[in-house]
Amino acid sequence: MAKMSSPAETERCIESLTAVFWRYAGKDSNSSTLSKTEFLTFMNTELAAFTKNQKDLGILDHRMKKLDVNSDVQLEFQEFLNLTGSLGVACHESFSRSRKYTRGALGAGLHTNPLSFQLPSHHHLLMDHTYPEPSRDSR
Amino acid sequence: MAKMSSPAETERCIESLTAVFWRYAGKDSNSSTLSKTEFLTFMNTELAAFTKNQKDLGILDHRMKKLDVNSDVQLEFQEFLNLTGSLGVACHESFSRSRKYTRGALGAGLHTNPLSFQLPSHHHLLMDHTYPEPSRDSR
Repeated sequence: MAKMSSPAETERCIESLTAVFWRYAGKDSNSSTLSKTEFLTFMNTELAAFTKNQKDLGILDHRMKKLDVNSDVQLEFQEFLNLTGSLGVACHESFSRSRKYTRGALGAGLHTNPLSFQLPSHHHLLMDHTYPEPSRDSR
Repeated sequence: MAKMSSPAETERCIESLTAVFWRYAGKDSNSSTLSKTEFLTFMNTELAAFTKNQKDLGILDHRMKKLDVNSDVQLEFQEFLNLTGSLGVACHESFSRSRKYTRGALGAGLHTNPLSFQLPSHHHLLMDHTYPEPSRDSR
């Protein structure tokens, strides 16, 4: 097998986000989706900066319902992507406002706005889009 | 200012993907979007594993047109997210098929399928969704 070169940052991040999903989704018998318990563990571990100061205990329940577009009380990978995408938009807007980027600055901007991924309405397009059920037959 | 704890993997990846966009978008005078030239530089640097064996030189032109949903010959951040999202889906499917994940395995799977981000039709929902123009007025 040919030796692989080291992946670039973008490739590495995409792979990491996918791996994170599988790591948390694999905690129960349904290893390809995030249950509500797995979602809460994910949020409180991987996005603790956004959740730790949250006083409204129902906010994560509400977020899960918004992400769960097919209402099966599980998050498929495409539904999970909507969360990461909307957080990316929040990061992007944070940087757009400051117009000065240094490593960590985006995180810092978001740290001061816990759960700032509750985005303005036009970004809810990222959240509200209905993906069809994954199916081999639909390919 | 309170000392920040080290960000978790998910937060770091989201921030990195945002930073990568700004790094490439900032190469010309319009620093908030990717021009065609900037997109090609991004693809050939950050996703070289997918482009290096590509014989069809028009494929990146075609991909840019598909991503550029508002046809302004620039990629806004939301349009860029559709690319990373669809690559995430490709990673996810690669892992779903193999059912054994080790670090680098997803990359390896994709390396063998250059431009495997040309996804089956139901994933084109990720590509074909029309985002409104970013506007401060629409918030």
